[in-house]
Amino acid sequence: MQSVRVIVVEPKNPGNLGAIARLMKNFGLDDLAVVNTNRIPSEDSFRSMKGSQILANCKMVETLEEAVRGLEFIVGTSGVKSDSPKEVLRNYMEPREFVRMSSRIKGKVGIILGREDIGLTNEELGICDFFVHIPANEGYPILNVSSAAAILFYEIFGGEKTKKAETVTRMEYDRLIERFKESLVENRYPEHRIRKTTLMFRRVISRAVLSPYEYRILMGAIGCNHRKKIKT
Amino acid sequence: MQSVRVIVVEPKNPGNLGAIARLMKNFGLDDLAVVNTNRIPSEDSFRSMKGSQILANCKMVETLEEAVRGLEFIVGTSGVKSDSPKEVLRNYMEPREFVRMSSRIKGKVGIILGREDIGLTNEELGICDFFVHIPANEGYPILNVSSAAAILFYEIFGGEKTKKAETVTRMEYDRLIERFKESLVENRYPEHRIRKTTLMFRRVISRAVLSPYEYRILMGAIGCNHRKKIKT
Repeated sequence: MQSVRVIVVEPKNPGNLGAIARLMKNFGLDDLAVVNTNRIPSEDSFRSMKGSQILANCKMVETLEEAVRGLEFIVGTSGVKSDSPKEVLRNYMEPREFVRMSSRIKGKVGIILGREDIGLTNEELGICDFFVHIPANEGYPILNVSSAAAILFYEIFGGEKTKKAETVTRMEYDRLIERFKESLVENRYPEHRIRKTTLMFRRVISRAVLSPYEYRILMGAIGCNHRKKIKT
Repeated sequence: MQSVRVIVVEPKNPGNLGAIARLMKNFGLDDLAVVNTNRIPSEDSFRSMKGSQILANCKMVETLEEAVRGLEFIVGTSGVKSDSPKEVLRNYMEPREFVRMSSRIKGKVGIILGREDIGLTNEELGICDFFVHIPANEGYPILNVSSAAAILFYEIFGGEKTKKAETVTRMEYDRLIERFKESLVENRYPEHRIRKTTLMFRRVISRAVLSPYEYRILMGAIGCNHRKKIKT
């Protein structure tokens, strides 16, 4: 099964965090981080049932950046999706599709569950490699956070078991994306479009789940550095 | 989608019934019956959110027999299963299997959600045509009733919508790959490696399944043509 860290951002309604801890126990997960909460209400301890140890051991961190440290792959969740390919931030996968894809990732995957009311901010979604949306009734697709957790963990627990191939580390991904961005700058790509184009490149490349070999080749192929080498 | 009545037996912990009503709204269900409860706590109204109308319209009945009247098919749920074929009462299907099977049933299907503590009695399970068990960690497979509802309703709703998004034609792919190759030549990429690198790029890009929008952006971003444009 996929190695997973569950990250809950600013839980507000008492009970939800406990319900999530219980679900983690139900589906064999144990790494929980909570962003920006200073205490865990007793309602949560009550609802966590046999997941109480997971709740007691959770990492309490101040920022999302801290919570995602060391993860290979970061997935946001949101009830608000966009079917417009131009809204790169809100492009999404469905849970089963995500499980199939992530089964090829060797390291730990972070699943970020947003606030009960406003979910994840655009800035937070920007930290994610992509995001997962649970298909639901168009008229009211906003699930309670623990319901969303139930469905995601269930899919992860029962997802197809594919052999894990070696993949690229997060740091290497970052380096490739940085190189892509540099190549845009170098080639006088319109400045106001660089951010979005780079973000889109990250989405495409993350979706492809690169092997170390592919990574090395792309690092050599992107960035027009061969001409420079010859010129100097 | 399957026509469904959700039947909740003696809910005890305030909030669960509300969470179930919300989930029904999320997944397009609206027929709710509650067995042996004389009032609905305010905690439930609060948690039902946009499912409040479903909660307000629920049938309150005294016995399970009343709740299942008129149904074509009755499904119990339980965290306690048995793998022994001899324990007929506890023989089970998993949710996805159940959805596949029930899609062939024309009338209304009843889904019975048991008590938070003791679930359904053997007598109640006897009323069911069969029962569904959600696969979970053997060490602690007992889900909260609203978590179980989330997973079941999600599966009934369709799990995977296989949204067929617009993708890029084969000819467009070829053009992108051609441009990538040209950029390698232009940048004096080692000639003996061009063929293999181009082939690898095709693999990566195919795996990502590009949208037409991503295609256009990549066509603009690959190929160093902006610098050329400025130079001339």
